[in-house]
Formats: sequence, structure tokens, C-alpha cells
Amino acid sequence: MDLSRIGWVEAKERLLQAGVALLPVGSTEQHGPHLPLGTDWMTAEAIARRASERGGWLVLPTVPVGASEHHRQFWGTLWVPPDVLRDYVIGIARAVASHGLSRVVFVNGHGGNTGALEAAARALRRDGIFAYVYVWWRAIPEVIAEVVEGGGSHAGEMETSVVLAIAPELVRRERYQEAAAGAAPEWGKRVHGVEVGYDTRDFSATGAVGDPTPATAAKGERLLAAAAEELDAFCRWLSAQPEDALRPPPHLP
Amino acid sequence: MDLSRIGWVEAKERLLQAGVALLPVGSTEQHGPHLPLGTDWMTAEAIARRASERGGWLVLPTVPVGASEHHRQFWGTLWVPPDVLRDYVIGIARAVASHGLSRVVFVNGHGGNTGALEAAARALRRDGIFAYVYVWWRAIPEVIAEVVEGGGSHAGEMETSVVLAIAPELVRRERYQEAAAGAAPEWGKRVHGVEVGYDTRDFSATGAVGDPTPATAAKGERLLAAAAEELDAFCRWLSAQPEDALRPPPHLP
Amino acid sequence: MDLSRIGWVEAKERLLQAGVALLPVGSTEQHGPHLPLGTDWMTAEAIARRASERGGWLVLPTVPVGASEHHRQFWGTLWVPPDVLRDYVIGIARAVASHGLSRVVFVNGHGGNTGALEAAARALRRDGIFAYVYVWWRAIPEVIAEVVEGGGSHAGEMETSVVLAIAPELVRRERYQEAAAGAAPEWGKRVHGVEVGYDTRDFSATGAVGDPTPATAAKGERLLAAAAEELDAFCRWLSAQPEDALRPPPHLP
Amino acid sequence: MDLSRIGWVEAKERLLQAGVALLPVGSTEQHGPHLPLGTDWMTAEAIARRASERGGWLVLPTVPVGASEHHRQFWGTLWVPPDVLRDYVIGIARAVASHGLSRVVFVNGHGGNTGALEAAARALRRDGIFAYVYVWWRAIPEVIAEVVEGGGSHAGEMETSVVLAIAPELVRRERYQEAAAGAAPEWGKRVHGVEVGYDTRDFSATGAVGDPTPATAAKGERLLAAAAEELDAFCRWLSAQPEDALRPPPHLP
Amino acid sequence: MDLSRIGWVEAKERLLQAGVALLPVGSTEQHGPHLPLGTDWMTAEAIARRASERGGWLVLPTVPVGASEHHRQFWGTLWVPPDVLRDYVIGIARAVASHGLSRVVFVNGHGGNTGALEAAARALRRDGIFAYVYVWWRAIPEVIAEVVEGGGSHAGEMETSVVLAIAPELVRRERYQEAAAGAAPEWGKRVHGVEVGYDTRDFSATGAVGDPTPATAAKGERLLAAAAEELDAFCRWLSAQPEDALRPPPHLP
Amino acid sequence: MDLSRIGWVEAKERLLQAGVALLPVGSTEQHGPHLPLGTDWMTAEAIARRASERGGWLVLPTVPVGASEHHRQFWGTLWVPPDVLRDYVIGIARAVASHGLSRVVFVNGHGGNTGALEAAARALRRDGIFAYVYVWWRAIPEVIAEVVEGGGSHAGEMETSVVLAIAPELVRRERYQEAAAGAAPEWGKRVHGVEVGYDTRDFSATGAVGDPTPATAAKGERLLAAAAEELDAFCRWLSAQPEDALRPPPHLP
Repeated sequence: MDLSRIGWVEAKERLLQAGVALLPVGSTEQHGPHLPLGTDWMTAEAIARRASERGGWLVLPTVPVGASEHHRQFWGTLWVPPDVLRDYVIGIARAVASHGLSRVVFVNGHGGNTGALEAAARALRRDGIFAYVYVWWRAIPEVIAEVVEGGGSHAGEMETSVVLAIAPELVRRERYQEAAAGAAPEWGKRVHGVEVGYDTRDFSATGAVGDPTPATAAKGERLLAAAAEELDAFCRWLSAQPEDALRPPPHLP
Repeated sequence: MDLSRIGWVEAKERLLQAGVALLPVGSTEQHGPHLPLGTDWMTAEAIARRASERGGWLVLPTVPVGASEHHRQFWGTLWVPPDVLRDYVIGIARAVASHGLSRVVFVNGHGGNTGALEAAARALRRDGIFAYVYVWWRAIPEVIAEVVEGGGSHAGEMETSVVLAIAPELVRRERYQEAAAGAAPEWGKRVHGVEVGYDTRDFSATGAVGDPTPATAAKGERLLAAAAEELDAFCRWLSAQPEDALRPPPHLP
Repeated sequence: MDLSRIGWVEAKERLLQAGVALLPVGSTEQHGPHLPLGTDWMTAEAIARRASERGGWLVLPTVPVGASEHHRQFWGTLWVPPDVLRDYVIGIARAVASHGLSRVVFVNGHGGNTGALEAAARALRRDGIFAYVYVWWRAIPEVIAEVVEGGGSHAGEMETSVVLAIAPELVRRERYQEAAAGAAPEWGKRVHGVEVGYDTRDFSATGAVGDPTPATAAKGERLLAAAAEELDAFCRWLSAQPEDALRPPPHLP
Repeated sequence: MDLSRIGWVEAKERLLQAGVALLPVGSTEQHGPHLPLGTDWMTAEAIARRASERGGWLVLPTVPVGASEHHRQFWGTLWVPPDVLRDYVIGIARAVASHGLSRVVFVNGHGGNTGALEAAARALRRDGIFAYVYVWWRAIPEVIAEVVEGGGSHAGEMETSVVLAIAPELVRRERYQEAAAGAAPEWGKRVHGVEVGYDTRDFSATGAVGDPTPATAAKGERLLAAAAEELDAFCRWLSAQPEDALRPPPHLP
Repeated sequence: MDLSRIGWVEAKERLLQAGVALLPVGSTEQHGPHLPLGTDWMTAEAIARRASERGGWLVLPTVPVGASEHHRQFWGTLWVPPDVLRDYVIGIARAVASHGLSRVVFVNGHGGNTGALEAAARALRRDGIFAYVYVWWRAIPEVIAEVVEGGGSHAGEMETSVVLAIAPELVRRERYQEAAAGAAPEWGKRVHGVEVGYDTRDFSATGAVGDPTPATAAKGERLLAAAAEELDAFCRWLSAQPEDALRPPPHLP
Repeated sequence: MDLSRIGWVEAKERLLQAGVALLPVGSTEQHGPHLPLGTDWMTAEAIARRASERGGWLVLPTVPVGASEHHRQFWGTLWVPPDVLRDYVIGIARAVASHGLSRVVFVNGHGGNTGALEAAARALRRDGIFAYVYVWWRAIPEVIAEVVEGGGSHAGEMETSVVLAIAPELVRRERYQEAAAGAAPEWGKRVHGVEVGYDTRDFSATGAVGDPTPATAAKGERLLAAAAEELDAFCRWLSAQPEDALRPPPHLP
């Protein structure tokens, strides 16, 4: 149930009954030569909608640009400073809470957003608004381990499978080889245990991390289903908590 | 041509050739009992896409939540502070310019956003990024005067017609009467020439301004076509300007 | 009754009885070759004082520099960023309210200040301080239509008449012709409905908009009297409102 | 020569020739029961104008409200946060410098402003704008020692004399006794060398520090003349410096 | 070589020759009932000094309070907001760079600081200052796996061993059992893959994570030596890089 | 009693009993060629600890870098902007107060910090946290007058004596002559009563103010003892005050 698609009369009913609001937060950033720039926001939106179909959670409009400055050397990457992303989602969450629905899940499709979203959640909790950050690939490690044969955290087999499931017409299969040729084996570049790869281009020539070749739409469907199921389960838990269980614990006596 | 739907290889080509980028900026806010909360962002997006179909301008992902605090008493309205909206679109425009495309039009679907967008444009111009605010209903006064029989600036005949053209399934025609009964005849509430209506609810019981009853999809199509045509014409003008003509004039000698 | 000219003993009495405080806010900016840079703050101050003479409203000290960056290419224009102006008047209004007088009118002499003043008023209302923006020329459209023969919103017949009434010794009549020669016929520069004139110098060679030649002190007196009368009427209305009528309306049930 | 009173044609000439701009910065705050709230801005303005009469320095419009929160318990005191005052004068100084006059003296009439003004000056110097803080009573200690019989730094003999010279009609001589009865002997309240008097009311019942009774207009004239003379002398020095002498010294080799 | 302990004459020599500056950043926060609140800053300082002994790197004064709000329910925990920590270390790094030493390692003793330090490093890199975040336990996973028998990331065997090596007099061995009894087995509290433990007290009754009992000073020495060695190795790598290798890569052609 | 050296169990007891917390705030900045850069934070720490030994006040970890930008031309000087220092100590003081100890003394070792610390104290007082700025040399003028033969406020006889008492191994006596040769006789550089010496290097070639030659450890001990005694006396006073006596006085009736 998308908030954008209903009027205020229906919104009243949904806000009072939904229990949890889902805010998809993604990015518009390079995903190798073969995946669309909107991969992350499309994925976040797809997972949120599928979870909503299961549990009736209220889906807020998707935040399409996030903290992606580290991809900026690649054509088309958009970004805002992390503090601006934080303040943007804080604004939205406060607004939702003003209508009586104070439990929000940031359905996050981009790893680079996580710090800003956690900072937002922490700030909101001080005001009695209970926001949580759902990073989909962190929630389903077993399924990923089972489904994904190769690896690669960015524009690799996992993300390519997901886009094949969501919007296959946007995947350029003819560029898999090019993507893989310049891909990094894993995220980042460490020297004596220190991360020195501040920008993706520090360690990946094509922007990809991992080989997309083994990706299939069926794998993507499996991942999306698992992610949506887990998100739905979390929302059930969240909506069932008494408010006191969500509040920060008191100071030690 | 949506930036979100292409990869960085195509993005390079588009960024270097498009001449102008369009950033749809809307809101998620009450639009009377009969129109969806996403009316403004859907409209901005629709106009940007139609203009892009005409002139090939690059369409950036839609900013769905804006400066709508004055609608906050109505269920479902979302908002961010104007400064946050300003900073969010500044971030996006700077990112686009970093890829060599420094002419951006904010395609604005919500009047309350205008001040923040103008402030963004002014700040960007200082750094050689040329952003302009396209407020669609300001660009086509003659067509509006011709098409719209009644009046009303918010959720009235004009906006209802547009949504009937874009997404008729989201319009609740059975609520027109309810909307009109509580509607304000015009925007705001002035006392001795001073605007004292800070919130929509100060002057409208249902959130609407004007009667939606005369709305038709055909009128909406006419408005959208005119708005897209005018936006396309503006983009042609903008892309044809030499950069010096866009820069601030120098100090008087 | 100027607050600056009384001590705290008298101030107590005035603060508790005045009902409304007036804060003149102007600018120091070019007004064509013939009018003084202080035109806007002098006008705002004059109107506030005349209204105070009628109704006994408390006049706060004049804020002399505002949001005039768009005039910066002309010699002598001063400005502060809009956010700074907003915070400056917020500070003053909060201080007045701390003494028990929580109804304030920003008597605005410069159109460029309006957005910042409205933002201030909106922020103050959240804290139970009721500020309103009085833009004098918006309050008396009929009188202006009747008195002003030509037109021009900046340094034209209207403003020149006002300065002739307030401080005729500061008007350089011998420069009327020069002003008119380079004046714009109206404010701004629109291309396909988009405002592209970010700076006054984008559309006016001398900084004036309209021809000052038909200006007379008598017209100026008429305008000032009307503006003061309307402001006084607004203050009467404001001081008569119960506080609940000024508060934001509650959320819809 | 007041900038407010001339048009941009004259302003050009003055900006290019004046050498130094003077920005009077005062406050609107309690000055005991006998002096007007505007004492500080009136004094700063008077000294700036007198110095300008001597040396032709360009006088900018007076900033009437400053950092006076510590007087807030007394009726009528206005204030803005120190950071806002700092940003306000930074804006004005940058504007003046944009017209080619980059030497500015903040003529300060209120001790509480000094920190904010120094912070502004320091920030401006980083950008090649040379601002200095002239605190009038610090510049003429010998004259003060000679003229002032009693003492008291706030609303005492010294300030009362000055207002008697500037605006005798605003001095309530019949309240001298009341002022003196509740006055503090000196500013602040120290305990074991620590200042614990955060607010004036922590140590003064009437807001005055020192006894105003020995004040005379003649003493005030003497003080004003000396302060203006010293300010003029400083401006001569400042305008005579080569720019390199004003820049921060380079890092040690 | 501590910068604090030398004068500016020696500092010149060290700044020009050291190649890398080390800024220990820690926290003052609860570390179970048995470890001192200063554990993290003492550890960071100890590692920095030991690395400096090996390679002569310049040690800056220790930042003792960091982003520890999540420990606030435990007596004595101090913290500053993450943005303030970020700005504080940015200031210090800029200052060091102003003296010609533009390579800085934040030697981080507290996991909660990492996001703020990375944000600082990213901001500094934009200005040609090359800062890196050394999180000591991330740099020596093999040694930790070898040395630490049990586990626990906070006030467990690992940290207790380190404090036993640095300052054994501050360890309250008689409280090990109490610490272990209320300790969490691992950091955080996840529900369906979502971190819901915003505060340490959400998942640990005593503030500890893991059992300190197996800790020994010898283990601590081993950990410190390894961490210092790895940090020294990183500094050698860093100081040997040509500046171009540290700059962000250029935009894709 | 250093907070850093105890665990949370002891901290509870100390926080509830100490009555006052001491936060040493210093700087890392040039102190002539003969004194260490850490002079100010070492001094502040030493005084706080000695006072704590007398009265049992709780000593917080030392803030080692402050507002020292004006020393930046000298090798090794570190600094943060004053606003960042202010926010850093505000954070710490709020944290202490969250544990029930809301009386804090900033034990300040660097004159340049004073404005920022006072601003912090003022902000904290609004929230019922009572912070005071102890500037040690201001608290013991008689002892200084008695002990110090020459003069000089920075790296002169007084400060050199103190470091001789605290850390004699860090004093380079062989550089006294060099220090004195380039020293300024007193702080700053005034022209017609205006401070024009924004940077120390504007008036001192070696960074010193005054001649260190007459310094002795015995003098230093005397100064430290007096400063600690006075601080202890202040803390006794502070801890004995009823909370109402510390709150801001109410508005005048």
C-alpha cells in the first residue's frame, strides 16, 4: 500500500492501522557497465512493496538519491552529503510520526547510506520515534550463501540477479564480460588492515565488484522473496512490541 | 530518458549530449479527499518525461517529498524543512554538474517548494551551475485561463484534471462533492492585506481550494501537453545559450 | 512610540499594554541613480511610526540591511544571506516575546526580504510567538492603482513618491531621465514562463524599474497614509484576537 | 557621510575614495531606569558620524540589536545570539568589500558585542577583508580617567553623560537616585576569581553599574569628541597602511 | 615523539621529517565493572606511542572523549555528538597540515568513533590532507584469533588483556565474575537481521561483552606489540607513497 | 580523582558525592622556543589535580587542543575553531550532568579559549547545568604580583616557572636568551586603542611575551599551589550553593 497513491481519507485509516511504515532509501549510482544507475532504489522499493503485500505495511515514497560520493568518478552517479540524507529522512519520519505512526523502517538498498540512516534513527529515538535500518543483504546471509555461487557485493552476481528479477529490460547482458574484466574481487582496498580505498575507482576499473555472469532472474526472485519475508517478519515483531520495549533503557540505578 | 534506467556507459553519452537535466521535485501531501497524496510529484514527473520525449533532455530521479509543512494537519502529509529540501537538490545538481552537465531545471510540482528551489538555484549559480525553477502552472497562464472553467489552485479543477490524465484510477470521483463543500474559494486568508493563513487548514476544511467537479482527463491532457511543450521550449533556449550569457552580470564599472 | 527611546521602566508599561510590536525591516540597496540606498528601511520605519501614532503600537529599532544580494552589482548595495536575516529577526521577536508581548508585525520595506521573514514567522509560531509579515504595497493595491499613474516596482514612480514625502532632500530629481532611460518596464526577465533574471542587472541597466518622473510628494503622502492606516487596522485586528485564534489549527481528527 | 543617504552614483565615488567604512554596532538593552534602551546604538552612531565629519569615512547603517542576553531580565532588552550578530556583520562587511572597500571598523557601543565582532573580524581577515573592532571606552582611558569622577561601566556617570550630550530629552534625571540606590559598584560578581554573574541582574537590582548623578552634558561632549578623534586617528592609520601590512604574517620559515 | 612535549623549534624539525602524524582518538566510557572508563583512549595512546618508537612518527595529543552516547546509561560515560567529534579531529588535522605535514592517521581506540573519523578523513581528502582511520583490532585479526581464547569485543578478554599490559593497577580483577555474569555473548541485538540494540544496555547488564577471566598481561603485550607493528608498517607505506597516489582518482574519461 | 582511571561502579559513587567536576581545557600551541607546546593543557591538568587532591573534586579527562589559531604561524601549533571547542565541552558537560553531577568547572589553561568556554557555560545554564570558567591567572592576581618579578603573559617568567615545577625536563633553559630577544614586552599590538595584533606573530618574533629568565621551579610551585587552593575554594563555594542560587534570576516583575 503506497501512501502516494491514496488520499488523506484513506491515509488516516492506513496510518492508524498499519503499525509500521516502510521508507525505501536507495541511490542513483554506477553499478558497473551492465546495471542501471537506479539499481539500489529500485531494489529497496521492490522489497518494501513485497513486504507490504505480505503484511499490509504502509510504503512511503522512495528516496532515490543517497550517500554515493565514493562512486562519483563514474558517469551518472548522483549523491548528497550524508548529513543531508540524514536530515531528509529525519524530516519524513517526523512527519509520519506526527500522524500517529511512530514506527518506521528505513528499507535500505545502498550500503553507503547506512551510517546516515543509523544516525537518523538514533536522533529520532530521542524524540520517541522508533526507526530501524533494514539492510536487506545483512538480513538474509544464509539465503545469499545458498543462492549466490560467486560473490561480489556491488554489481556482481547478487545485485545483477535482483535486477534481472525486477527489471530485466534494464540489464545489459552483453556487458557482463566487460564488467567482470575490470571488477574488483571484493569491496575496498586494505593496506595493513587500513581501508585506503575511499573511492570505488581506487579498486575497481569498471565499478563492479564480482562477476555478474552467474546471475539469473530466478536467483533474484529467491533473494527478493527472502528479503521481503524477513522484512515482513521484522515488521510483525516491531508492531507487536509495547512502546516501552522500544524506548531507550533508563540510566542504571 | 531516465538516468535511473541506464548504466554509466550510456550515462556518459547522455550527460555529454543532453544539454539540460530535468529534476522533477514534488511533494507527498494532502490534495483534498479525492486526489492522491502523490499528486505533485506524479505531475512533475509526468511533465518532465513528456518534455524529455520531445527534446531528449535527461530526466533525473524524482524528489518525492518537499516543503509541505503547511498541510501537516491533514492525514498523510509528509514534509522536510525547506533548508533540507534546498540542500538535497543542491547536492543532486552539483553531482550532475560534476559529470559535465551544468544546466539543470527543477521541474516543480508544488508551490511550497518554490522558495527553497530558488535559494538552491541562486547558491548553485555562484559555483557556475545554472539551475532554473520551472513552476508549471506559472508557465502556461493562457492555456489555464482557456481550459479551466472554475478555478482553485490546490486539488481543484486544474490539478484534478491533470491526475485524471496521468492516473485516473487514483481519483475518487465520489468525493468531489465532499471536497467542494469544504473547499476554500482561493488560496490563503488575508486580513488587511496580510497573509494570516499559515496552514491550509486555516482556510480550508477539506484541504481543497476550488471545486474539482468540472475536471476532465481531456483538460488534463491539454494542460500537461502545454506544460511539457513550454518546458521543452525553455530547455531549447537554455541549451542554446552560451555559458557567458548565463553567468551573473559583472559589477557595474 | 520607539522602544529605543524609553527606559526599562516605561518599557514595562508599553510592553504590557501595546498589544502589538512593529519591527521595521528594510534594506540598504541601490534604488536607481536618483534615490538613496536607504529607501527601503526609511520607508518601513516611516510606515511603522505613522501606524504607531494612530494605534500606540510599540516600534522596535529598524533592521537596516536585508536580503539584497540580487542588487549586488550596483555600487553600495549591502546584504546578508537570507538565513542570517531570518535568524536576526527571530532573535528580536523572541526577545520581545520574553517580555510578554508575543504579537509582532514585520513591517517590510523590501520584497527580497519576504521569504526570510515568512520563514521566521513560521518558526516563531511553533513556539507560540505570533509574527506576521506586512508588505506595505501588497496591503494597498487599490490606493496604488489609483495614485500611481505609470508603474514600476523598484525606484519607479511609487517609491520615488514615497521618498519625496519622507526625505525630499535625498531625491536627485536631475537624474530621473537617466534612471528612466535604463529602467526595465517591469520586474524580472521571463523566458517561456521561467524567471531567469536572478540579478537586477540582468534586466535593468540603471537599477530602476519604471519611470520616476511622475512622482510627487503628495502621492507619496497618500501612499504612506494608506499604508499606515492599513497597518494600524491590521494591528487592531491582531491585538483583538484571542490567543487560540492565532495558534495553528490542530491535526484533523 | 551616511551610505543610506546617497544613491549608487555617489556611492561609487565614496566607496572608491573613503578608505575606511565605519559600521556602528550597538544594542537595545536596559540602561538603568534613567537611560533609554537605545543608548548603545545611539552612542556608536554618534561617534561614527563625528569621526566621519573629521575624516570623511563612509558610515554604514547602524546595527541596533546585539548580544545582550545577559540583560534579558530587564523589560525591553532585545538580543540576538552572538553567532547571529557575527554573521550579520560578516554579511555587511563582505558586501562593502565587494564594492572595493575592504577596510571596515566596527564601531562598537556595547561590551557584550565584542567577542562576536572579533570573531567576525578574524573570519573576514581570512578572506582579505580587514575589519577592526573599535570599543570606544577602551580607546580613551586617559580622557575617561580625567573626566569621570565616580565610575561605573554601565548606565553610570560615563554613559549618562554621553546620552546627555546626544539626546538629553531621553534622560530621566528624576530617576538618578533610584538608579544609584540599586546600582552595583562595578561590573560582575566574582567568587574566588571566577565570574559567576552571568546576568546583570545577578549583581545589580536596577541594571545600573555606578552612580549617574555626577553626569553632565559637557562631560559627554568631551568623551564623544575624544572618542571620535581617536577613531578618526585610527582610520587615518588604517587607510594609510599598505595592504600587505594588514595581511596575516606568513608562517615561520 | 609527543608533539606536546617539544617546543616549536623541535616541532619544525619533526613536522618536516616525520612523514606521518598519529592522532590517538579514544573515549571515556564504561568498560564493565572491572576496567577503567579511560580504557579506549589509553589503548589508542599506547599503540600510537609504541608505533612511534618504532618509526619516529609524530604523536599528537590524545582526544579523550568520543562518540559513546550508546553507553550513556552506565555511570561515568562521557560523549560528544559524532559531528562534533568529526569537526574536532578535522580541526586538528588541518592544523597539522598547515605546518606541512599532510598525512595523518587517526589511531582509533573506540569502534563507535569510526563513522565520524571516516567522515573526517573523507572531508580532509577533498582539501589535499590525507587522513586514514586505523582501527587497531581490525588490523590484526590473525593475532587476535591466535591470542584470544574466548571472545567479546567490549571489556572482554581482549580489552582486559590490553589494560593489564598498560595499566594493571586500574584493573579490578575481583569484579571479573560480576562482569561476566551480566555480559552479552556478542555485541548488539539483532531481530530478523536488524540491529535493534541502540544502546549497550539493550543487550548487556554490566556493560561487558564477553568474559574477561582469561585475560593476561602477556596477551595484552602481544596484542599491543602486533597492533603497533602493523600501524608502523602502515605508516611506512603511507610515508612512501607519492602524493599523487593518495589523491582521489580522476573522473572516468 | 581522575574519572578515566575508575570503572563505572566507582564512578557512580564519585559522581553522586563529588559535588563538582573539573574539566581541564588547554591547548597545544607554541610557547616560545623554550617551552613545550603542551604547556597550557599540562598546566590546567596539574591545577585541576592539585585542587582535586584537596577537595576530592572529580577530574575529567583533559581537552588538549583549543582555540589557538592566532599562534598558527609557529611550528606545531594545533587548533580547532572556537565553535568546535565550545560544542566539544558542551557535549562533555551534558554527559556529566546526565549522571547527576550538574556543576562543572572548566579549568582553563589558555586565554584564547575563554570566549568559547563562556559561551558554552551560558548555553549550559539554560538547561540547568551550571558551568563556570576558571582562568587560573585571573584568580590569583595578588600571588602573581608578589611572585613574578618581570612580567609577560605568554611563555614568560610566569608560565616558565609553572612548567619548571610540573615538567622541568621539558624546559630548554639554553633558549631563554633567544626567547627573550624576540619577545614582546606585553600581549598584543594596539593602535589608537584598537587591537590590531590578530596573530601573535604580529607582535612577537619568537612567540614569547616577556622574559623567561627569572623563572624558577619554586615560583612555579607557589603559583600552582595558589591556583589550586583558589580553585578548591571556589569548588567548595559552588558545591555549597543551593541549586536555586545558581539558576538565572527571574525576569523583573
